[in-house]
Amino acid sequence: MQEERLLATERKYTGKVLKLDLDTVELPNGKMTVLEILRHPGASAVVPIKEDGTVVLIRQLRHAAGGFIYEIPAGKLDHHEDPKICAARELEEEVGYCAGTLTLLTSIWTAPGFTDEIIHIYQASDLQPGRQNLDQDEVLEIVEWPLEEALAKIQDGTIRDAKTIIGLQMVVGRKK
Amino acid sequence: MQEERLLATERKYTGKVLKLDLDTVELPNGKMTVLEILRHPGASAVVPIKEDGTVVLIRQLRHAAGGFIYEIPAGKLDHHEDPKICAARELEEEVGYCAGTLTLLTSIWTAPGFTDEIIHIYQASDLQPGRQNLDQDEVLEIVEWPLEEALAKIQDGTIRDAKTIIGLQMVVGRKK
Repeated sequence: MQEERLLATERKYTGKVLKLDLDTVELPNGKMTVLEILRHPGASAVVPIKEDGTVVLIRQLRHAAGGFIYEIPAGKLDHHEDPKICAARELEEEVGYCAGTLTLLTSIWTAPGFTDEIIHIYQASDLQPGRQNLDQDEVLEIVEWPLEEALAKIQDGTIRDAKTIIGLQMVVGRKK
Repeated sequence: MQEERLLATERKYTGKVLKLDLDTVELPNGKMTVLEILRHPGASAVVPIKEDGTVVLIRQLRHAAGGFIYEIPAGKLDHHEDPKICAARELEEEVGYCAGTLTLLTSIWTAPGFTDEIIHIYQASDLQPGRQNLDQDEVLEIVEWPLEEALAKIQDGTIRDAKTIIGLQMVVGRKK
């Protein structure tokens, strides 16, 4: 099937992180449509895993989620930043570890119905102590669980964050 | 840890689907911060799985993703809609099946850094033929793969949509 054709774009909002556009598009079926699209810089996320199989997660206050949720360390890309550099930085800043090895697991579309956000998910191993350095609006605590326990918390609905579920499950996929 | 306190909210954009707010929040650490938050009605998604283990996916044109991507059938909730009703409707409209059984696998935060969107992910089984009925701006084709093949396409990066990866992997988790 053919691709679409962008006919016009109108920026409706420009914020600190997000931009919102109204794009007029001609679809391959000849129909015209106007789509709301949220432009996002993209992000990196990291599954930090120790030699003994312990994973390092955070319990973080997320305004959009209405409270604290469990996540892997993650953060937005700086302008034109290499996602691997971003992953290493967020790992150290959020949970205080440096990774000897960072391996890309996958890159996901979080919500392609309305945003171009991609999250690059890495596995971090050969962990060494680093220095935690939280932004002033980051409210979180570190939790460490055996990988099996984290997986059980996906099944029982304790872990509901998309990138976190995918990262944990892809670490298991690689071990097989 | 304490929760946060919402001090003010300012609506910056109201669209057909999305709304964007600037929320001023007092964090548990006493710091004040202003957060961009995209309000979304929520959605349901479905992993349709046949008796023989074949899964039914779609290859859909997504403007935000810049082309066609692989997904499970999904759609937005109508106002105050039961997510299970939404799942059943989207399953029939997008791929032309009715489900004898719809089982909730989990409900995920797609991108809790900036949106309140939740997607409720169901497994659909005991599939019966129904009637496909696409919206005029839906451009997609149906693809059917053995579950094992779909899982391999997660590992090799062909499938990159978050809800789709999670749905397929949770179906496997339930089979164990």
